[in-house]
Amino acid sequence: MIKVGIIGSTGYAGAELVRLLLQHPQAEIVWYGSKSYVDQNYADIYRNMFELVDEKCMNDDMEELARRADVIFTATPQGLCASMVGEGILEQAKVIDLSADFRLKDVKVYEKWYHRTHEAPQYIPEAVYGLCEINRSQIPSARIVANPGCYTTASILALYPLVADCLIDPDTIIIDAKSGTSGAGRGTKLGNLYCEVNESIKPYGVATHRHTPEIEEQLSYAAGMDYKPAEGIRLNFTPHLVPMNRGILATCYATLKSGVDASRIQDAYEQYYQEEYFIRLLGKDCFPETRWVEGSNFVDIGFTVDERTGRVIAASAIDNLVKGAAGQAVQNMNLLFGLDEKTGLQLVPVFP
Amino acid sequence: MIKVGIIGSTGYAGAELVRLLLQHPQAEIVWYGSKSYVDQNYADIYRNMFELVDEKCMNDDMEELARRADVIFTATPQGLCASMVGEGILEQAKVIDLSADFRLKDVKVYEKWYHRTHEAPQYIPEAVYGLCEINRSQIPSARIVANPGCYTTASILALYPLVADCLIDPDTIIIDAKSGTSGAGRGTKLGNLYCEVNESIKPYGVATHRHTPEIEEQLSYAAGMDYKPAEGIRLNFTPHLVPMNRGILATCYATLKSGVDASRIQDAYEQYYQEEYFIRLLGKDCFPETRWVEGSNFVDIGFTVDERTGRVIAASAIDNLVKGAAGQAVQNMNLLFGLDEKTGLQLVPVFP
Amino acid sequence: MIKVGIIGSTGYAGAELVRLLLQHPQAEIVWYGSKSYVDQNYADIYRNMFELVDEKCMNDDMEELARRADVIFTATPQGLCASMVGEGILEQAKVIDLSADFRLKDVKVYEKWYHRTHEAPQYIPEAVYGLCEINRSQIPSARIVANPGCYTTASILALYPLVADCLIDPDTIIIDAKSGTSGAGRGTKLGNLYCEVNESIKPYGVATHRHTPEIEEQLSYAAGMDYKPAEGIRLNFTPHLVPMNRGILATCYATLKSGVDASRIQDAYEQYYQEEYFIRLLGKDCFPETRWVEGSNFVDIGFTVDERTGRVIAASAIDNLVKGAAGQAVQNMNLLFGLDEKTGLQLVPVFP
Amino acid sequence: MIKVGIIGSTGYAGAELVRLLLQHPQAEIVWYGSKSYVDQNYADIYRNMFELVDEKCMNDDMEELARRADVIFTATPQGLCASMVGEGILEQAKVIDLSADFRLKDVKVYEKWYHRTHEAPQYIPEAVYGLCEINRSQIPSARIVANPGCYTTASILALYPLVADCLIDPDTIIIDAKSGTSGAGRGTKLGNLYCEVNESIKPYGVATHRHTPEIEEQLSYAAGMDYKPAEGIRLNFTPHLVPMNRGILATCYATLKSGVDASRIQDAYEQYYQEEYFIRLLGKDCFPETRWVEGSNFVDIGFTVDERTGRVIAASAIDNLVKGAAGQAVQNMNLLFGLDEKTGLQLVPVFP
Repeated sequence: MIKVGIIGSTGYAGAELVRLLLQHPQAEIVWYGSKSYVDQNYADIYRNMFELVDEKCMNDDMEELARRADVIFTATPQGLCASMVGEGILEQAKVIDLSADFRLKDVKVYEKWYHRTHEAPQYIPEAVYGLCEINRSQIPSARIVANPGCYTTASILALYPLVADCLIDPDTIIIDAKSGTSGAGRGTKLGNLYCEVNESIKPYGVATHRHTPEIEEQLSYAAGMDYKPAEGIRLNFTPHLVPMNRGILATCYATLKSGVDASRIQDAYEQYYQEEYFIRLLGKDCFPETRWVEGSNFVDIGFTVDERTGRVIAASAIDNLVKGAAGQAVQNMNLLFGLDEKTGLQLVPVFP
Repeated sequence: MIKVGIIGSTGYAGAELVRLLLQHPQAEIVWYGSKSYVDQNYADIYRNMFELVDEKCMNDDMEELARRADVIFTATPQGLCASMVGEGILEQAKVIDLSADFRLKDVKVYEKWYHRTHEAPQYIPEAVYGLCEINRSQIPSARIVANPGCYTTASILALYPLVADCLIDPDTIIIDAKSGTSGAGRGTKLGNLYCEVNESIKPYGVATHRHTPEIEEQLSYAAGMDYKPAEGIRLNFTPHLVPMNRGILATCYATLKSGVDASRIQDAYEQYYQEEYFIRLLGKDCFPETRWVEGSNFVDIGFTVDERTGRVIAASAIDNLVKGAAGQAVQNMNLLFGLDEKTGLQLVPVFP
Repeated sequence: MIKVGIIGSTGYAGAELVRLLLQHPQAEIVWYGSKSYVDQNYADIYRNMFELVDEKCMNDDMEELARRADVIFTATPQGLCASMVGEGILEQAKVIDLSADFRLKDVKVYEKWYHRTHEAPQYIPEAVYGLCEINRSQIPSARIVANPGCYTTASILALYPLVADCLIDPDTIIIDAKSGTSGAGRGTKLGNLYCEVNESIKPYGVATHRHTPEIEEQLSYAAGMDYKPAEGIRLNFTPHLVPMNRGILATCYATLKSGVDASRIQDAYEQYYQEEYFIRLLGKDCFPETRWVEGSNFVDIGFTVDERTGRVIAASAIDNLVKGAAGQAVQNMNLLFGLDEKTGLQLVPVFP
Repeated sequence: MIKVGIIGSTGYAGAELVRLLLQHPQAEIVWYGSKSYVDQNYADIYRNMFELVDEKCMNDDMEELARRADVIFTATPQGLCASMVGEGILEQAKVIDLSADFRLKDVKVYEKWYHRTHEAPQYIPEAVYGLCEINRSQIPSARIVANPGCYTTASILALYPLVADCLIDPDTIIIDAKSGTSGAGRGTKLGNLYCEVNESIKPYGVATHRHTPEIEEQLSYAAGMDYKPAEGIRLNFTPHLVPMNRGILATCYATLKSGVDASRIQDAYEQYYQEEYFIRLLGKDCFPETRWVEGSNFVDIGFTVDERTGRVIAASAIDNLVKGAAGQAVQNMNLLFGLDEKTGLQLVPVFP
């Protein structure tokens, strides 16, 4: 059994890790970290775990945790993982960081978009960006896996084959994304209240959302480019808050390169994703809906070509807490420990 | 592997059966029955099953189905199961009926509340009311299991120990129940439209809902009474429609017998349910919420005693599609085939 | 024009007062009080008021406010109004208190249920309980109007004729109520977060909710009883939180007195309410739904008689922010200033 | 009093017309047309109108209606208005058509996108496109006003100043729009069921939605172009279905012309809209949310400039049933009859 510790187990992503790991045949949670709730029963914080989890919440002592666990998930705000990680820890346990601390390779980009100083830049080079479908081969040997963001997972996977195969003009990419409210976390902020979210939709972080450089960087690599101040893809990414608990839909637009048609697009998707269990290609003119992936680790992708405008419109749907956070983290854990990548993740989407 | 056939697999309860059985280690679905969608791909009707179910929908030929399957689930409107069942079928397969056809022992009560003639009353006596926590011993040898209704499961389980131990006056029972909209089925009726349900709550079927006699009958048995025109418990049951997909909450009121206090109530719940995996006793002054059981087979029960009025208020929460329909049906299947009752049902509730 | 000041104008009830008063032909808001947002633009707190309200938020200086306004609405937490009111204020302005400070006539009952010392008990005797349909004649001459609670408005109006005409046994009353989430206020509490409320229903404050004595007291008066420790009606009131913004539904149960039938019940409702513009009697077997009153000051009431159990089930629906708070407060203001009671309140319910 | 007839008064847009006209000081509804519900009480179909509307539903006899009414609103499916309109009618009454029959000037475009033959193309030339803020001067003298679509109103108003002032490259326009479910109408289709819409978001009609040519045509005129097969603007418009009752958000993207900055954009919005009561300019970096306009006729518009990509992102929010349908229709009626355009429309947005 893999011994697992979770720092930040009482956020929504942390709680989803608990849900998935409780149903994982080869993992055992040994540390329910939660600074805010130390010594409280985990099941009092998440009553769905009543009689399923008996443990109390633990503090953030990552050193001690590393002694007890084989792998540490950090489902915490930006900066926490970077502030705690070190050789003592990495010699004893793998780290899967669900925050953004190790996702961006250029520390200046991180510091600019996140408005904070990075406290452990020395680990950025070795950290592997844990988007399994793209970086699978690098993950098993990593010490630190940077688990991708929710919006970024949906966005990158929708566009990767198109960029990698040079089917679209990368300067024309626009991603209009929509997320359920669990993506905003469990913080008690006015904007997260039921009556403020319900019966409304709004854009936020327009042209400034921090998942933008993460998408740009990975797509730049896909295009064979570096991602630097004067190099790499620049795109528009606009997130919207939707009155629902879970789900992300990324609607992506780009101008096709000359001569590219729908069947060429379809070929590219199949070439890259046909063997991927968690990616379901809906095909031309069939679009994803978040309800069809809820509770599962699937990524549903569909597209169409608009010949009038010469653009492709591709869309992907994920459950932001599963493939967009905890599920992908478990997928990474499976790769790190040599298990079948699907172990514990073959969950049938819950509908309705 | 148990070979399973489902008649009515494209209703919400049928689709939930599919979800649960796909994740069941010892069952295999061999027949996706759906009169409305014969020959269509099941995954085109329920896109969450894309790449998980390859089969096409089949007709209602229960005779043929009985030859192929070990057990038949009928997740169909009232009357269908009764109209098709017969010796030829029962000799070959077990039948778990999710409709009300075999739940009421007195055919006249059935015909009065359901406004239809019963087409197979000869099978009523042998059918077992499949509320596992109450009737466990009778289920394994049954040929027909009458799977309880969603409201009735929540209501009976909340009140059973109180009635069985004579702690309340059975003439004072009032059940005010609330259900998510999946309980209304997938029929395209005006009242089921999004804009008609959203941002509203309404009572319906007040004093006439057909789950009333089912609750009364089972609680009468618990009280050691028959359930006949002039005998047995009479109570008020009022269902309400709530703007959410899943979940039933039953808030139950009754006047305590003289001398009964909260600890006596607690004792009764523990005596009957302590060993029940799927019943979680929250205890005094802690009340259930439907979100904590969503997607799972759990029944959460809490209560309080109001000394000012001499009443107990007990409440239970279930997922109407799981413990209220498909999950309970699988639990019955497990009992019928000698499996551990929990097989395939140890699902962690999904939250948020 | 009536000059109006609002203390607590940035809570949901306060903001609804603003909405209603902006559309009131004879009122003008001169003071947007909001301790938390002093000096901020009101329209920055409630963006729906953009270009409709130019004022900034003011402090809680009730003395100064009394000099400027003809009437003061206090839409504030319990205790605030009682702590500020005094002769200096009451000589200059009428006070309509939306909190519970002056609703209960027995200060000990207030202090017991609200767990606080009342700071101005000397004004309790003269305060008028502002349920216009019941106490209309006393309101015009009042200095302090105690605006009823949201649950209490719905509950009392559903039961008043039945109690007043002795049609039911008052010891058997059970009120199972359901409310939209705006009733919980705009406080940033975990329980008010979107993901905590959405897709769930829960009871709360079972047997302890503070609207209980308010309902009991008014129904006791209706029955010709006092409301004291050993006298008056005792009933069960159970509120539930529903995933919707607005609306309260109160489902009420009581045992009929011998010989009372449905037509007698209907007669009682008509006798008391036939002339009431804001009460809409749906009649026998037709039940209210909160969507039909949303945004309006209407109270919809329906009922049925269950001859099997000898009970009446009556239900009422209101918009908790209108008839349950701000609308009723404006109705009281109209009465205080000699206007037609309906002035500014003839709003057509918004659906869907 | 203006005598008003409504054909299609029992759809959501028709019912919203009723709500608005009941509160309009100079209009009186004389004909509640509804083919499906002829002779039924209107208030039985829309219970919110109980005691507010006593009339029964009438048939579609537009000839008779024209004799009784000064203005006829057709809130009906495509084709109905064109099939019924004629000189006999237009000589007696103004027609405000909420369907698409007279919105597109090129009948071939209509027939291509709507897959139907136009039955009254002779009236297309004289029909005025009733987007008041753009075409105000032409409306008063019209016999037929083509009331704009919901998506188109939001989209055109967000982009009009940018296109008219040549601030953006019209070939780069992408509109990603999101709508509440009332936009899908009251038809009993599977896709409109509560459980199918709730907890999900989906794109639909991608690259094929019929509001596309309407937006293109009007923006082409703004740009000084004709709109013909080989001329005019071509853009991408992608609608999405959001789990909420009301509201449309249109998020618009376009590449800025060289040298255009945010202040130039702001100037253009102010130049065109500063005097418009129903358009509220939120300004740079402040984005609209549908909740702030719910129930009102307002259009909220905000924008930002992304210097990294050289694009403007502008967004607008409306209530699809008010400014997107019934409110705009009443605005047109006011213009047709020489009333202040705001008459009956100064509704404060309802929140929450």
